[in-house]
Amino acid sequence: MSQGPLAGIRVVDLTRVLAGPFSTMLLADLGAEVIKVETPAGDQIRGQGGMRDGFSWYFAGFNRNKRSVKLNMRTAEGMAVVKELVATADVLVENFRPGVLAKMGLTDEVLKALKPDLVVCSISGYGQTGPYKDRPSFDFIAQAMSGFMSSTGYPDREPLRAGLPISDLVAGLYGALAVAATLRRREVTGKGERIDVALVDSILSFSSYFAANYLATGNEMGRNGNDHPVVAPYGVFRARDGDVAIAPSNDQIYDRLIDALELREALAGPDFATNAARMKNRPQVNAIIDAKIGTNTRDHWVDVLNAAGVPCGRVLTYPEVFEDPQTKAREMLCEVEHPGRGPVRMLGFPMKLTEAPCEMRAPAPELGADTDTVLAALGYDPERIASLRESGVI
Amino acid sequence: MSQGPLAGIRVVDLTRVLAGPFSTMLLADLGAEVIKVETPAGDQIRGQGGMRDGFSWYFAGFNRNKRSVKLNMRTAEGMAVVKELVATADVLVENFRPGVLAKMGLTDEVLKALKPDLVVCSISGYGQTGPYKDRPSFDFIAQAMSGFMSSTGYPDREPLRAGLPISDLVAGLYGALAVAATLRRREVTGKGERIDVALVDSILSFSSYFAANYLATGNEMGRNGNDHPVVAPYGVFRARDGDVAIAPSNDQIYDRLIDALELREALAGPDFATNAARMKNRPQVNAIIDAKIGTNTRDHWVDVLNAAGVPCGRVLTYPEVFEDPQTKAREMLCEVEHPGRGPVRMLGFPMKLTEAPCEMRAPAPELGADTDTVLAALGYDPERIASLRESGVI
Repeated sequence: MSQGPLAGIRVVDLTRVLAGPFSTMLLADLGAEVIKVETPAGDQIRGQGGMRDGFSWYFAGFNRNKRSVKLNMRTAEGMAVVKELVATADVLVENFRPGVLAKMGLTDEVLKALKPDLVVCSISGYGQTGPYKDRPSFDFIAQAMSGFMSSTGYPDREPLRAGLPISDLVAGLYGALAVAATLRRREVTGKGERIDVALVDSILSFSSYFAANYLATGNEMGRNGNDHPVVAPYGVFRARDGDVAIAPSNDQIYDRLIDALELREALAGPDFATNAARMKNRPQVNAIIDAKIGTNTRDHWVDVLNAAGVPCGRVLTYPEVFEDPQTKAREMLCEVEHPGRGPVRMLGFPMKLTEAPCEMRAPAPELGADTDTVLAALGYDPERIASLRESGVI
Repeated sequence: MSQGPLAGIRVVDLTRVLAGPFSTMLLADLGAEVIKVETPAGDQIRGQGGMRDGFSWYFAGFNRNKRSVKLNMRTAEGMAVVKELVATADVLVENFRPGVLAKMGLTDEVLKALKPDLVVCSISGYGQTGPYKDRPSFDFIAQAMSGFMSSTGYPDREPLRAGLPISDLVAGLYGALAVAATLRRREVTGKGERIDVALVDSILSFSSYFAANYLATGNEMGRNGNDHPVVAPYGVFRARDGDVAIAPSNDQIYDRLIDALELREALAGPDFATNAARMKNRPQVNAIIDAKIGTNTRDHWVDVLNAAGVPCGRVLTYPEVFEDPQTKAREMLCEVEHPGRGPVRMLGFPMKLTEAPCEMRAPAPELGADTDTVLAALGYDPERIASLRESGVI
């Protein structure tokens, strides 16, 4: 058993693809036992996204520390197994479309009868309520409908999505947080919970000063590329060997920047004296800074500017990220031995806990790897397991 | 007291600006008592981002459900108060630069002596360890250094940040999750924890299939604007009255799309027969679909395509988001009465819990609103409080 903060917690995981599996992986990384229940075809992600020798490193990276039970939930016998499993569980997480779980037979009432203190967490595109709840959903659509895209991109071009599926991932995080907080309450009160997390709500909750500004003033901040909406200079500048991001977010840091770049004279005079003046003359300011940054390397400026107290970093590609000394020092790249698949590299744990840390206990399971063990623990004898297998239930 | 899942938990909140205050707001929304300790000048966000009548709606939206104690931690008396407060707390959250908390006198040893089962959570740009830990940090820099920007934007333009400060917010979420999971462990074992969360690690953990693809194959997926890296069509299309996002992520959904748009004939032939062919002829495919979408309104296509099982949504501005029926049905826009400030609108709760829901218990506090009450509860009599006030400690 794990020693993590959720050690001893059993999660029945009916999720697939991304938001749900990310959520249950967070619970697994934190020490919970996660039993991933898969259809006979398996989570579709097993065949997608970063394949090597027929094996999906994408799947591997989102399903570590889990167990896999393969069964057909559309059969009565399969559903009976799921129900028996739920009765032994603390948490159930699912990301079907709203209503599907109930149609499969797992209504709130049935779940409560199976395990009165069960924590049930549903993750969906639009949530379990509201006029859009039955629509098919997708990360990209949530980015569009939450306002996120309206704030990303260039002022003279269309709203732009993030490359990464952030709505899925933020929803997964909220699901895990709601479950973890509820598990604390459950230790105190013995009570279960019903949790409803939506992709659109989740990414909308990230609107921060864009939402606040609009709600307070009625004005939109719009899209600003890499520029800051109300501060100049600020953005991406071109060093001799690549880009650096520089964020002098206030006058004090601006002064440090200009001194460190030795541009006090070049940026003297009323055209550059105040942030308001620099906002008006942003192209000139940026050109002067760009010319200076172009005289040396990224590493040079990162060293010089950070030493001067100016937030500055290289704009990294993924190959560069994984070679970066900080990434290595933080163990954000891990290698996991997958029996029969060789070593698989994946991201590390962003939550660094000291006493009860996240651990790499097991690679992502092969489809159905734990079916027999889990069924045996439920009291199924070898004959019954063989019979279920013969009839295609497992 | 709240009835939320973290009811009864006391958090001493030494954070300011964004990542930390978001993290403690999540804990507060989940029912914890959060005591925000502010310098005499107050959290700088009190004067920034979406001001109305001299009041920051940005601050209001990130500090609801908290109490505020104003004191000067740089005085011995101020630090004595903080230490007494810590001794009564379950959790301490801070987002100073690494080392600052210890320099102020709150080393891990001191904290443990004050409260052996304290959960301490530090949120910082690069983390408490590694070669970059002492650098000044900023959301934009974390977006640059994590690879996030390398995946966002157009193929022929520079890497692009998200408009929203996602690194701050994701780190805040991870901090809250680590705390909540640890609080469950603490109920079981009575033990505290030391947590270290970094902005760069947090957003790097979102790299999903971009990281998996690179690690598995050595190839980068790069930037694709609103297009999908390996699926066509997919993206933003122009209806008569605005943009819609359409995500036909596989062949089955593509077929539904083409039938719903009645473009079966227009897209017949080998140039469009397979996804690979459509990827090659993306401009033509997109032009054909755009022409069709342009013949009607956003709402029309959203209805028609979703009914056909194709994920589709309007690309919304913030004004539109807050008028959207789903936003209203999900109560993602809230109005909070601030005494003396009038009603303030802010985002709702993305975690919908049924039995012990997140609640709007209190508006964001005025600076130092709870100083006297909190000190009195620590045993400070009115004379001592008056004397601390006179000497500028509180």
